Amino acid sequence: MIGDEILIGRVTDTNSGMLARMLEPVGWTVAGVETCGDSAASISGAINQAMADADIVLTTGGLGPTRDDITKQVLMDIFGGELRLDPDVAANVERIMSRRGLKVNALTATQAMVPTSCEVLENRAGTAPGMLFSKDGKTLVAMPGVPAETRTMFPDVVLPRLLSLYGEECGSVQHRTLIVEGIPESEIAERLAAWEDALPASMHLAYLPNMSVVRLRIDGTGNDAAALAQKMDRAHAELCELMADHLLCDHDATPEEQLLKMLTDRGLTIATAESCTGGNIAHTLTLVPGSSAAVKGGVVAYSNEVKESLLGVSPLTLQANGAVSEPVVEEMALGALAACEADIAVATSGIAGPSGAVPGKPVGTVCIAVADSNGSDSMRFRFPGNRADVINRATQRALIMAIRRLSM
Amino acid sequence: MIGDEILIGRVTDTNSGMLARMLEPVGWTVAGVETCGDSAASISGAINQAMADADIVLTTGGLGPTRDDITKQVLMDIFGGELRLDPDVAANVERIMSRRGLKVNALTATQAMVPTSCEVLENRAGTAPGMLFSKDGKTLVAMPGVPAETRTMFPDVVLPRLLSLYGEECGSVQHRTLIVEGIPESEIAERLAAWEDALPASMHLAYLPNMSVVRLRIDGTGNDAAALAQKMDRAHAELCELMADHLLCDHDATPEEQLLKMLTDRGLTIATAESCTGGNIAHTLTLVPGSSAAVKGGVVAYSNEVKESLLGVSPLTLQANGAVSEPVVEEMALGALAACEADIAVATSGIAGPSGAVPGKPVGTVCIAVADSNGSDSMRFRFPGNRADVINRATQRALIMAIRRLSM
Repeated sequence: MIGDEILIGRVTDTNSGMLARMLEPVGWTVAGVETCGDSAASISGAINQAMADADIVLTTGGLGPTRDDITKQVLMDIFGGELRLDPDVAANVERIMSRRGLKVNALTATQAMVPTSCEVLENRAGTAPGMLFSKDGKTLVAMPGVPAETRTMFPDVVLPRLLSLYGEECGSVQHRTLIVEGIPESEIAERLAAWEDALPASMHLAYLPNMSVVRLRIDGTGNDAAALAQKMDRAHAELCELMADHLLCDHDATPEEQLLKMLTDRGLTIATAESCTGGNIAHTLTLVPGSSAAVKGGVVAYSNEVKESLLGVSPLTLQANGAVSEPVVEEMALGALAACEADIAVATSGIAGPSGAVPGKPVGTVCIAVADSNGSDSMRFRFPGNRADVINRATQRALIMAIRRLSM
Repeated sequence: MIGDEILIGRVTDTNSGMLARMLEPVGWTVAGVETCGDSAASISGAINQAMADADIVLTTGGLGPTRDDITKQVLMDIFGGELRLDPDVAANVERIMSRRGLKVNALTATQAMVPTSCEVLENRAGTAPGMLFSKDGKTLVAMPGVPAETRTMFPDVVLPRLLSLYGEECGSVQHRTLIVEGIPESEIAERLAAWEDALPASMHLAYLPNMSVVRLRIDGTGNDAAALAQKMDRAHAELCELMADHLLCDHDATPEEQLLKMLTDRGLTIATAESCTGGNIAHTLTLVPGSSAAVKGGVVAYSNEVKESLLGVSPLTLQANGAVSEPVVEEMALGALAACEADIAVATSGIAGPSGAVPGKPVGTVCIAVADSNGSDSMRFRFPGNRADVINRATQRALIMAIRRLSM
């Protein structure tokens, strides 16, 4: 991953994770990820190290038209060659720029200059082409840093080319995941100690805690994919059994994916009423493709006026209990249920911080309610962390409460 | 950064960026970031490489109580020593677990076993202590992988200790940022070519494009901090002048931060009416601390029924133009303005994809409106990318339209 903006922390690298997830089904293992700055020394240092450690090296970034993008020059220092004009790339640059309603200027035109030492890989989503270099039986593919471009280019163009070079089968790596909640990592580990001890050396259990849930992932390797799948399925079934009392999901799905599947499978709809989560529950649900089948809508009720006017919360309830209280969130959930004519509704009200704490209600205090035609339920939580943590934990907890309500 | 979960792409590394941002004011430069898996060979390989490349090495992750966390053992292989029970850490583990309402079990208790070769650094937010090791005049600090723990521990405990070891002054690194919009990177670069050529060698301009805005960051280094600050301020003023017609913000603020500052400075309030952005505009605004002073609330109007019932959009307007249309988003914005009694409102309606396209309205089509007491305005956009990209670009564009409206 090449770019000062990543090193200094202004941009978070999401490309390496995206590439790893796309490599997993092929069974290729990522040996390491290195992030380096925009200087020739650090780019070439990172590339030489990676070429020593792995058979295939993927780089992203540093291919733009501005002068802090020097990767192309560094690659020619390593792999030789000189720049030539590639007419196909020039045509692509022309096409991309005209689609964006722009004309090609002198800087953009340089994108069509490629090293003679590389094989050009088409980038249909942007102006910088991919470039494949070979040396000592190893392969390097340089891709642009813009995530939307790499996301399209890697599976469409780069991976098929790499598979044609390296063959599809290099052994099988498989994963099985389940998600548990309401039990800390250390207690899970204690409960599973004997089971983990009995796992064969080719299998391994990873603990992936994330806020209130823990993902348990079994990793297995083997040369016979079918035999491995059988062993993995058996281990997965055992693990589900051992964790049954805390099992949230028997496969790798986010709470929002799981909730939306339950809703659409039953033809039900959901509404939201959010104070402290400020729209994040609705946002989290609607990020999932196809969510419009189940999400009717909701209200972001940040002020008390909006809680009253759009959700019908009683001013008396607000006055008697304060906005952050079980009675208020229950009225909010029932209000959203009615206003949006939905089958189930969730509501939040809390103190995300850093300010806003009142006596008896410290920062992190959040009340969450779920309502359906049978009535409403609520709980009070105290979440740790900063403002974003409290919002995210409250969001996840609201989704889990809706899943539990639908599972009853 | 240590952990299989990062390498295989299930968890995105945010620690390295967080650490880099906290190191910037001190003037220390991050030489590189390496991500490795949970095997002893890859952890020790990464650490040895990093110790060769830098004076100070920071690691996060691999310190948990479960058996895939082996960093402590690897550190003893490198730095020597054996495990000893640290009574202060044991007391901290006890305190943390009881705050979480849990008891210390055999696994959690092992967190209090630390190598005799390290200096223990207190972790007030979690059970795994930080550990400082020294070798050949270089320093390694191992910290836990949970971002909330590192975020507290690094500035409170680790950085002060490192400063006491290395002294506060190693030269000065400074940055100045401005944000422009409505002009592509390549055109900016063309416009700034002569200005960039005239920059002294100690200064450098970085282009950081992010959706519809480009952040321009001037990086400068020098031994005299005051003299450097003067040079940086002058360059920043020149750059603002050169980009005046596209300048969105003269400092490093997100659109939501800038919008909220404009609102609170003037004592104004905002409301949202979101269809395709599904709550993300409200969420983006309410993530900012103090936003409750300006955000009244809003409606997530995913279904047409909710657009009518909560926002008062006319069924005739919906029928005549379709939900994704300028007239409908303008009625949505005016409806939110009235329902939430706010001073300004933004509204979105579009096709985030991957499905939902209709003739004349492909995926990525989004209509955005802004309304205030003077009436409403709207524009139609066609955003590239996947569902999340369209949602994020529409969110950013809506915030920018509100900023522009308030700047008129």
